Amino acid sequence: MFRYKCVVAYDGSNFSGYQVQPNGRTVQGELEAALKKIHKGEEVKVVGSGRTDAGVHATGQVIHFDTPLHIPLNRWPIVLNSMLPNDISIKQTELVDANFHARFSVVKKEYRYKVYTSPYRDPFKHVYAYHYPYPLNLDEMEKASKHFIGTHDFTSFCSAKTEVADKVRTIEDIRFVKSNEELEVQFIGNGFLYNMVRILMGTLLEVGIGKRKSEEIPSILEQRNRINAGKTAPAEGLYLWKVYYD
Amino acid sequence: MFRYKCVVAYDGSNFSGYQVQPNGRTVQGELEAALKKIHKGEEVKVVGSGRTDAGVHATGQVIHFDTPLHIPLNRWPIVLNSMLPNDISIKQTELVDANFHARFSVVKKEYRYKVYTSPYRDPFKHVYAYHYPYPLNLDEMEKASKHFIGTHDFTSFCSAKTEVADKVRTIEDIRFVKSNEELEVQFIGNGFLYNMVRILMGTLLEVGIGKRKSEEIPSILEQRNRINAGKTAPAEGLYLWKVYYD
Repeated sequence: MFRYKCVVAYDGSNFSGYQVQPNGRTVQGELEAALKKIHKGEEVKVVGSGRTDAGVHATGQVIHFDTPLHIPLNRWPIVLNSMLPNDISIKQTELVDANFHARFSVVKKEYRYKVYTSPYRDPFKHVYAYHYPYPLNLDEMEKASKHFIGTHDFTSFCSAKTEVADKVRTIEDIRFVKSNEELEVQFIGNGFLYNMVRILMGTLLEVGIGKRKSEEIPSILEQRNRINAGKTAPAEGLYLWKVYYD
Repeated sequence: MFRYKCVVAYDGSNFSGYQVQPNGRTVQGELEAALKKIHKGEEVKVVGSGRTDAGVHATGQVIHFDTPLHIPLNRWPIVLNSMLPNDISIKQTELVDANFHARFSVVKKEYRYKVYTSPYRDPFKHVYAYHYPYPLNLDEMEKASKHFIGTHDFTSFCSAKTEVADKVRTIEDIRFVKSNEELEVQFIGNGFLYNMVRILMGTLLEVGIGKRKSEEIPSILEQRNRINAGKTAPAEGLYLWKVYYD
């Protein structure tokens, strides 16, 4: 058996999320359907670095799968892409050893969140960035973001439905990239809880419009209660940008 | 009555085209539904500068409509956009006199066609540009395009289903903008026949890959037969960019 690692990009707009579910079109479902065709009807399990929700995009999702097929490495993206719909694309394939695991071997992840603030709603951005047509105080947002950096219990900043017990995560960096009426916030950390980036972003935006102050963040973290943080920013602005392995 | 002229942008991906039809979601249909709500159930007819096909985008479609309502000019885009779906947006509104007609007053139009040539299929471009993963000879394409400039009978370069009798049109300019693996071709003229830009583009692409020579263009024009020109390039690369009036 060979184990392959692939970097996968997808436009999340028309998916019910990454993970296979009984109803709805999913990224994992499309990948497994393509592999099944290539394997003449045999089921091939795809393991992803983690889930993404409905509407969330990826430029650098990582998956692995095992196969007995002898296909040259540089042919895999071509063969897979010819079987995949246009809104998913295999960017890169690598032969890895059996110890590699797309989920358990993750060292860190980068998510990016895109916002555009023009008063005019742009029909070409409506599923690729969050339209938030208000002036933003970026200095105050950056100040707030510094409180998230480091190792914290992020109970206040994940969905109340989060199932994992340990809500301590480490955020290595949060960077702001601003050009004209577009803002991109880059989040890099060792792991992110369910809805965590979207709640961090929603809270930062409330700081940006003056609804909250940057100094409030430490006490929100301490309270460990989802209700104290800001709204969950919508899915369309979120991108799983890159997954890091050793 | 007041007559308003509006500049409208739309992402054509999820429309069955501009013009109202019995089945399918259309741009005109959405605009008229929004105006009907604003006019408390009264039908308001929307006149566009021309049709666009299913999947074709617009950054600068122009429409007009008549209304008895007293709404300040700068409020119109806000009121209309609040009633319109996210893939259509009113960019600008202008009060015009009753002689203005969105279709009959057109002086010239600009269309743009976007192609990307990377071997990698980009899921974020798949409905916004035509994926044509072949090296293109741009010099040869530009040479070919010069033969289209001026006043010609474009029978060979319009759909065989075209209903208008007079197929003579004037193309003022065709410009090439190339950056990395993206090519944009800009077509400016006094009017374009059904599928004309897509057939011009399909023919230019065949010149680009060496399937045709630029010198063949004059004889294709002379033959006045659709069968002699290239394939119709797909809808997703085409944008109605700007409509010019006096």
